[in-house]
Amino acid sequence: MNLAALRGRTVTVVEVGPRDGLQNERALVSTDDKVAYVDRLSAAGLPVIEVSAFVNPKRVPQMADASRLFARIQRRPGARYTALVPNLQGLERAIDARVDEVSIFAAASDGFSRANINASVDESLVTYAAVCAQARAAGLPVRGYLSTAFGCPYDGPVDPARVVSLTERLLELGVREVAVSDTIGVAHPGQVMALLDRLLPRVGTAVVALHFHDTRGTALANVLTALDAGITTFDASAGGLGGCPYAPGASGNLATEDLLYVLDGLNVKTGVSLDGVTAASAFIEPRLDHALPSRYVQAIRSRRGSAEAD
Amino acid sequence: MNLAALRGRTVTVVEVGPRDGLQNERALVSTDDKVAYVDRLSAAGLPVIEVSAFVNPKRVPQMADASRLFARIQRRPGARYTALVPNLQGLERAIDARVDEVSIFAAASDGFSRANINASVDESLVTYAAVCAQARAAGLPVRGYLSTAFGCPYDGPVDPARVVSLTERLLELGVREVAVSDTIGVAHPGQVMALLDRLLPRVGTAVVALHFHDTRGTALANVLTALDAGITTFDASAGGLGGCPYAPGASGNLATEDLLYVLDGLNVKTGVSLDGVTAASAFIEPRLDHALPSRYVQAIRSRRGSAEAD
Repeated sequence: MNLAALRGRTVTVVEVGPRDGLQNERALVSTDDKVAYVDRLSAAGLPVIEVSAFVNPKRVPQMADASRLFARIQRRPGARYTALVPNLQGLERAIDARVDEVSIFAAASDGFSRANINASVDESLVTYAAVCAQARAAGLPVRGYLSTAFGCPYDGPVDPARVVSLTERLLELGVREVAVSDTIGVAHPGQVMALLDRLLPRVGTAVVALHFHDTRGTALANVLTALDAGITTFDASAGGLGGCPYAPGASGNLATEDLLYVLDGLNVKTGVSLDGVTAASAFIEPRLDHALPSRYVQAIRSRRGSAEAD
Repeated sequence: MNLAALRGRTVTVVEVGPRDGLQNERALVSTDDKVAYVDRLSAAGLPVIEVSAFVNPKRVPQMADASRLFARIQRRPGARYTALVPNLQGLERAIDARVDEVSIFAAASDGFSRANINASVDESLVTYAAVCAQARAAGLPVRGYLSTAFGCPYDGPVDPARVVSLTERLLELGVREVAVSDTIGVAHPGQVMALLDRLLPRVGTAVVALHFHDTRGTALANVLTALDAGITTFDASAGGLGGCPYAPGASGNLATEDLLYVLDGLNVKTGVSLDGVTAASAFIEPRLDHALPSRYVQAIRSRRGSAEAD
C-alpha cells in the first residue's frame, strides 16, 4: 500500500445526506430546514450534493418537496446539485427543477430490485435506458447507482462478474459514473479488492465511485483499499444520516465527517471543510429522532463532554 | 497496497477483553462468570488472552479476583494467559498465579502517565526496569504497552520521535513486544503510516503490536495500514468490551469480531473462530449494563431481528 502516493491527490466526495440520508429517516424534516441544511453543506465546500429524489410523494413523503427545495437552495458556483429519478416522469420534474445531474438506482440483485422498485434488474434497465436517452437529449448527465454490489439482503452473495457486467451495461446506457454500492454494509477489504481487480481493468477508475455503509465498521478500511486501487470518488452522508447503527435494519451510511477525517489525515485534497460538514450535521440532528451515528461527531461530542466535566 | 500478499499470512490476535475490557466496565462481573468467559475465549482459539491485572484491588475492584481467576481458568495448550502488573508486588502475585507472561503499562505522554499511575513516564520506567529484571529472573516474558502513542487526552499531539525512543527504551528493558496503543482512538491511516515509517526501520516488525480503539471509526483502516507495513500482532477486545461508543469518555476498544471479519476476508490466518468469539461476547453481554459496541455483533443481531420480523 503506497499511502504516501495519495498525498496531494484529489478526491471527490459526493454528499448523499439530503437524499439517501433523509429518505431513510423517520422524522419528517420541513422544507425550510432542508434548504438551510443543503446550504450549510454547500458552504462546507462539498462539490456534489444529492439534494432530493423525484419519486412518488405518496410512497416517499420525505422527498415530496423536491421541486420546492431545488427552487430555494443557494447554488454554489462549481458545485453540482443532483437528484434521484426513478422514471421519465421523475426526469421531467427534475429537468423543470433545473437539477445539474440525475441519478438512476439499479441493483445488482433481483431480490433487492424487486423489493425496492417492483421490477427485476433487467426490467429496470429498460426504464433506465429511456431515462438516459431522454436525459442526454436534455443535455443532463446521469449517475448510476449499482446497489447490493457486495451482497443482497434477499439473495445473499452477489457474483462479482455480475457487478462487472451490470456496470458495463449502465455505462453503455450513457451514465457518466457508476456508484458501486454496499447497500447492506457487508463489504470488507478483501472483497473490495477482489471486485476492483476485476472491474477496473474493464472500465477504468474514472467512471467508478464507491458507496460504502459502515454497518460492520469496515467502511473506512474499504475506502483505503479503493483509494489504493485508484478510485477517486466516494459517497458519504453528513453525520452518517440515514442510519443509526443501534437500530435494526439500519442503513449505516458512511459519515462524511469520518471519511474526511481519514482523507485529511492522508493529505488528500477534497476542498471540503470537516468543521463545515460537522456544522451542517449539528444543524440537522435536532430535527431527527436519534443521535447521528458518525463516529467522528460522537467522539468530538464526548471529548467536549469530558472537558466540561473537568 | 498489496492486500493479495496478505493471503495466508499469520496474524496473532491478542484478546484484551477480560482485562482492558472488563476494567473499563461499570458492572462488576463475578469470578464464576469471568472463568466461563475466559474459557469461551480459549475455546474460540485465541492464542493470547490477557486475563486480568494484579493491581490494587481497592483502586480496581473489577480486577480483585485475579489470583482466583488464574487458578480456575482452563488453559488451552499452546495459548498464553497474561496479566498486567504495575509493580514488583503485582509481579509477585502474578508469578504465584502462574501467568505465562506479564504486561507493563507505560505511556508516551507525561500527562496521561501522571493521571493514570501518578508518575511521569521516566519515573514509571524506573519501576518497570525493576519489574522486567525480576520477571527475567523468574523466566517470565514481559509485554510492554505504550499508551497515548497517537495522542494524549491531556497533552494533545504526541511526537512520533518520542514514541520511537520510548519503544526502544522498553525493548532495552527486555520486553518481548511493545503494544503501541491509540488510547483515545484518534489515529488515522496517515498517522499510522507516518509512525511506522519511523519506527519499523529502528526495531523491526516482530516486536511491535498495534492496539487500536475505534472511537472515530478508523480502527480497521489503521489495521489495514499496519498489516501492509508488515505488522503481524493486533490487540482486540471481544465485542468491543470496555467501550460503548455512545457513552462520553468511551474507550472504544477495537472489537475482536470486527477485526476477524476483515482478517478472515483477506484470508489471513489467525486460528480464531469468529463464531466462537461471538459466542463468548453473547455470554458476557447480559452481565454488563449496556449493549456491546462491536459493529459486527450489532449487524448480526440486526439481521436476525429483521429475519424474525419477516
